[in-house]
Amino acid sequence: MRLIASDPIYLWDLIGTFVFGISGVLLGLERRMDIFGMFILAFVTGVGGGTLRDIMIGSIPVFWMKNLMYIFMIGVSVVFTLFFKNKFAAHWNYWLLLFDAIGLGVFTIIGLEKALRFDLSPTIAIVLGTMTGSFGGVIRDVLANRMPAIFQKEIYATACVAGGTVYFLLNGVMAEYHSWVVFITICVVIAVRMLSLKYHWELPKFLS
Amino acid sequence: MRLIASDPIYLWDLIGTFVFGISGVLLGLERRMDIFGMFILAFVTGVGGGTLRDIMIGSIPVFWMKNLMYIFMIGVSVVFTLFFKNKFAAHWNYWLLLFDAIGLGVFTIIGLEKALRFDLSPTIAIVLGTMTGSFGGVIRDVLANRMPAIFQKEIYATACVAGGTVYFLLNGVMAEYHSWVVFITICVVIAVRMLSLKYHWELPKFLS
Amino acid sequence: MRLIASDPIYLWDLIGTFVFGISGVLLGLERRMDIFGMFILAFVTGVGGGTLRDIMIGSIPVFWMKNLMYIFMIGVSVVFTLFFKNKFAAHWNYWLLLFDAIGLGVFTIIGLEKALRFDLSPTIAIVLGTMTGSFGGVIRDVLANRMPAIFQKEIYATACVAGGTVYFLLNGVMAEYHSWVVFITICVVIAVRMLSLKYHWELPKFLS
Repeated sequence: MRLIASDPIYLWDLIGTFVFGISGVLLGLERRMDIFGMFILAFVTGVGGGTLRDIMIGSIPVFWMKNLMYIFMIGVSVVFTLFFKNKFAAHWNYWLLLFDAIGLGVFTIIGLEKALRFDLSPTIAIVLGTMTGSFGGVIRDVLANRMPAIFQKEIYATACVAGGTVYFLLNGVMAEYHSWVVFITICVVIAVRMLSLKYHWELPKFLS
Repeated sequence: MRLIASDPIYLWDLIGTFVFGISGVLLGLERRMDIFGMFILAFVTGVGGGTLRDIMIGSIPVFWMKNLMYIFMIGVSVVFTLFFKNKFAAHWNYWLLLFDAIGLGVFTIIGLEKALRFDLSPTIAIVLGTMTGSFGGVIRDVLANRMPAIFQKEIYATACVAGGTVYFLLNGVMAEYHSWVVFITICVVIAVRMLSLKYHWELPKFLS
Repeated sequence: MRLIASDPIYLWDLIGTFVFGISGVLLGLERRMDIFGMFILAFVTGVGGGTLRDIMIGSIPVFWMKNLMYIFMIGVSVVFTLFFKNKFAAHWNYWLLLFDAIGLGVFTIIGLEKALRFDLSPTIAIVLGTMTGSFGGVIRDVLANRMPAIFQKEIYATACVAGGTVYFLLNGVMAEYHSWVVFITICVVIAVRMLSLKYHWELPKFLS
């Protein structure tokens, strides 16, 4: 079963799950979790955002119960990370961030379009797209007992909001080219995220 | 769309969302979160309890997806708090606690009556009223990585239980005056909460 | 209302809720929570895993809303623990771990069979059985602001997975003896859990 008909989205959805899973395993390694703990942390990171979305809009059973590929991708992310863990710090960091940004973009569009199919308004669709993209990491951080990175670090969830806004602006002028709207939205999320990492963009903090 | 037909409740529901939102922003400021982090924290504090209630009883999509006023009130709470943040410590603290108590009372009655409309028993209705009133703050504290205040501080959730109990007692003797039952229930929650703050009432702790 | 028709399972379900509740109260005592805080912690520990399962598969309202015995058992666990709290460290520890293991086994089979009744695949059924058995403790630990024990300590969730696997293997060869399949599954979970405690079995941790 596929979330969205178009194959490229489904493929990137699985890749996003895989990459988000890796970030869970890496945090699990840092916290000296055992291998099953790492699997659970990878699992909540990879599917947590979409699960929260599905529960809130009433799309049940939640998506990963109807397609075992998601759990499979989480398993692959655990094996992959443990195999290459000594390489991560040195060579893989850039690629990991890039794939994470791609996953963020794809998860945002998936959440957004799923909300629309449930007849929700554009504002709520952007909220759910952002939630799909970023709340897996929030649950990961809560379970590892640290304050979620999303609250302090570089622009992350904001990239989802930017992408979602562009999606609806484009839909107003070129709704007939839906694939392009989707593609550009994903690119906006990725671009905002990667540029904020490169130039250390941060949102204002209002310290007193 | 309104949760309950009567306008005063709806108005106080929005005010409760606003005040609970403020408590999220204040904690976000303390934890040096960026502005979007503060918005998310305000959001979970303001609508988290009701969201949990709606998910558990199957009222989906959850309430804030059908009425954008809730998200708007959260936005207002962020702007308001940042604008007046230097005034809070000095002058606003009492008013904040008072409005928080009002929000607590209103959220309790909303949760309670929603449970009844879903054909749940009085005991479960009290549980859900308490959850609606107090679990937004629990999620806020978990996301900010501290032990929820509800577990240790002055009487808080207990005020919801007291109000819920009074609600069913009154319903046994004066069910035909529904508005009065609602009004008195809210007053009981507010009174228990404010008196416990004034006189530092605490529940027993059984330290060994 | 009963989750599963057979009485022994229902009885052990209540006992599991009671024992899981105790572990919540004990942590609440350690964290100097007040009595209502302890009740909430006992509540989330006792019914949290099953609640999460019910929400995700769409079995709403969740199970404890339709049968007050669960809330009653939580209340009993609070009174019981506070009454005997000075005895726990010395004499009760072994019995507590044994009953916890029994609760784990029973919760696993309940989650597993409920998933099957919702037409989910064996893999998802094992995931949901494991979640039912072990996520109450995860929520307990998150609310008490510590990293969930499940991520680091002796084998716990793994016992659920082992039991779930045995369940489907047995179902392949002796499905007609359903009571026996259930009984053996529960015994496998208990045995794996108790043996891992006795011999300090741990899963590999891949420290670098």
